[in-house]
Amino acid sequence: MRVELICIGTELLTGKVNTNIGYIGERLNSIGLDLSLVTTVKDTIDEIEDAFRKAMSRSDIVISTGGLGPTFDDLTREAVAKVLGRTMALNREAFSEMMQFFIKRNWEMSKNNERQAYIIEGAKILKNSLGTAPGQLIEVEKKSAKGKSGNKILILLPGPPREMQHMFEEQAFSYLREYETLIKRKLTLHICGLSESAVDEKIRPIVEAERKLEKEAVEFGILAHQMLIDIKISVSGKDELLIDETLNTLKKEFYDVLGENILGEDKQTLESVTGELLAKSKKTLSLAESCTGGLVAHRITNIPGSSLYFKQGFVTYSNDSKVKVLGVSQEVLQEFGAVSEQTALQMAQGALELAKTDYALSLTGIAGPSGGTPQKPVGLVYIGLAGPNIKEVYKYQLGGNRIEVRERAANIALDVLRRKLVQNAKEAARK
Amino acid sequence: MRVELICIGTELLTGKVNTNIGYIGERLNSIGLDLSLVTTVKDTIDEIEDAFRKAMSRSDIVISTGGLGPTFDDLTREAVAKVLGRTMALNREAFSEMMQFFIKRNWEMSKNNERQAYIIEGAKILKNSLGTAPGQLIEVEKKSAKGKSGNKILILLPGPPREMQHMFEEQAFSYLREYETLIKRKLTLHICGLSESAVDEKIRPIVEAERKLEKEAVEFGILAHQMLIDIKISVSGKDELLIDETLNTLKKEFYDVLGENILGEDKQTLESVTGELLAKSKKTLSLAESCTGGLVAHRITNIPGSSLYFKQGFVTYSNDSKVKVLGVSQEVLQEFGAVSEQTALQMAQGALELAKTDYALSLTGIAGPSGGTPQKPVGLVYIGLAGPNIKEVYKYQLGGNRIEVRERAANIALDVLRRKLVQNAKEAARK
Repeated sequence: MRVELICIGTELLTGKVNTNIGYIGERLNSIGLDLSLVTTVKDTIDEIEDAFRKAMSRSDIVISTGGLGPTFDDLTREAVAKVLGRTMALNREAFSEMMQFFIKRNWEMSKNNERQAYIIEGAKILKNSLGTAPGQLIEVEKKSAKGKSGNKILILLPGPPREMQHMFEEQAFSYLREYETLIKRKLTLHICGLSESAVDEKIRPIVEAERKLEKEAVEFGILAHQMLIDIKISVSGKDELLIDETLNTLKKEFYDVLGENILGEDKQTLESVTGELLAKSKKTLSLAESCTGGLVAHRITNIPGSSLYFKQGFVTYSNDSKVKVLGVSQEVLQEFGAVSEQTALQMAQGALELAKTDYALSLTGIAGPSGGTPQKPVGLVYIGLAGPNIKEVYKYQLGGNRIEVRERAANIALDVLRRKLVQNAKEAARK
Repeated sequence: MRVELICIGTELLTGKVNTNIGYIGERLNSIGLDLSLVTTVKDTIDEIEDAFRKAMSRSDIVISTGGLGPTFDDLTREAVAKVLGRTMALNREAFSEMMQFFIKRNWEMSKNNERQAYIIEGAKILKNSLGTAPGQLIEVEKKSAKGKSGNKILILLPGPPREMQHMFEEQAFSYLREYETLIKRKLTLHICGLSESAVDEKIRPIVEAERKLEKEAVEFGILAHQMLIDIKISVSGKDELLIDETLNTLKKEFYDVLGENILGEDKQTLESVTGELLAKSKKTLSLAESCTGGLVAHRITNIPGSSLYFKQGFVTYSNDSKVKVLGVSQEVLQEFGAVSEQTALQMAQGALELAKTDYALSLTGIAGPSGGTPQKPVGLVYIGLAGPNIKEVYKYQLGGNRIEVRERAANIALDVLRRKLVQNAKEAARK
């Protein structure tokens, strides 16, 4: 079964990031289907037609995202109808569903929304409970005697990720599961505190030993991103037990060489893992951020239920607020500056006392692009940690632009806290 | 000149977002070159080879990103050498540049970095000043009598966006400019406060009138994202004066129908525009965030130089911190709750008084997924604004998941402030 994806939208070729490819790829992987190729095209009828024509000539399943909206540049419906030589008609059911969507929200339905209820001859409607554009599923060739294997399948999904994902999960995925042929298990290990090359060197013996075995199909990948390294392992085959065993053995071997540098697996993130550790040990956290300007607080509070352990954050961007709110001393600021070990420590201690939490994390640094000096260049960041018998400061010289320095500093700060919480949990267990 | 892009990386098919397509597409557009097709492939040598073979058979310029790293799954060099039937050799210059990169940073160079200095026969090295992987530029066919037109061009760039962008700007872009054929001007207008359909209805007469004229090639696009709507206009042709005139006329017409709903153009964002308005009027801002947990502060401080006007943010996630730090009254919390008009107002006033800024913005709401009630459902958000003679609260019922509610609330809050600053600037000008 060859699967292709066509992503439709001029915006995807001129600036907007596309999260749909990764989402669909990952979900297909989970049932042993691979995205062989992804084509991204702009919103012109000729390009869209051509992409569908080519994809249908070489693949069994063609999925598309985008171009189902109400506006003049939403052309997927028209293009596919032309390629298939089929007509389109206003579907009363789809139209009334759409009206319901507007009535429920007390929104006015605009004339051009009507276009969205045009359905290609023979298509199955995929309901969109989160938006106005219904999707369409079309089986193109006649069924052969052996069932569906003679068909080509076309699935048209909307572009907005939330609508696409919901429709995919509720309606397309169960349909595609019928084509599941291969069992595939995947595991991603997230690492912080080592370079990409260092991780590669540590795991290379494992990877090479596995390659020599050639039993199950095992694939490895390494990916570095803002001080985080991901190791991706996938094992596929026909024998579920053997696959699980292989993956578990590899996982154990990776943990043996990487230990606590592994912060989590799969969907886990620094903020989710840190949050879990805080929740499990019934500890609370406050933050004092300068250079990261609220990014760490934002990430921590992205996690549902974070109010359980996260109490308060201070974004003390001005020196004045560091003094007045957090109680950093004027003398320290004058003698050592706002970006210093001493200030980082006083910020963390100030937050700890004010918020009465168990831990407080602070960040102060020079995110750039300006503000650097030869003594304190752009990328210099101090991270302070205060807590029960803890008064620690870490100094880093980070690379990258303003956005990257801030992201990297946030990652390191969360990792500093994570390692401390892991260590404390171990000590508590020992007692 | 047909241009294709090949993005190499299994991670791009299984979860990681790809910002390189948009970046390269946008830069090519600026010199009248269009990305005709983007193919995204995984890190296996067969897939990469096949993608290059196909792309080279149908396009004049093939650009690739990714697969130039030091690890076992970085295979672009090998694949291209095979497709071209050329050898590879360790390039001493590239190798010594790489060593310098490690020496400068006092990092240890790992054995496998050596692979990155292997250069394809006849390739021009593209230096990587931000990373270790050099790029390669290869002209494939012999030059014809008419100059370069007989050549196919292959440009191999690294995958990490920062390295790719820097190399593209410094070395690939000037090379590609020689192929500039068409003049193209683009304009994006950002809108907040109207729905996608409402924007479409307002601008449709302009779009349709323009279509009837058929003078210059004009393209329009509309894109909605978390309460923001982008209108993209592009005009291309041979006559620069006519192009500029067409774009300026369209721009004026769009401003006439959309007015202050247009928050900015092109690279402007809500945070950059709001920051400029604050800086221009010499006003300062503080923030009191609950449901957005630092997101607004993070976005404002993403802007270089924001310390000029942004003084302080409070992430008062717990009720306790709302009372103790911001001075929200216990009575108000008990009678109306943390998510209420009254709390939003007291939060803004508390921040204003504590930080002594000209304006203070507050956000309190229910981001979900839990915590909603029939009276106060998930997505309910109050935004407070305090300032000189200003005490305002806005109530919104937002759709979407936790992340989306937070993003949408942040956008609306910034837009509330922006509209107030625009209004104040107008009143000041009138006096």
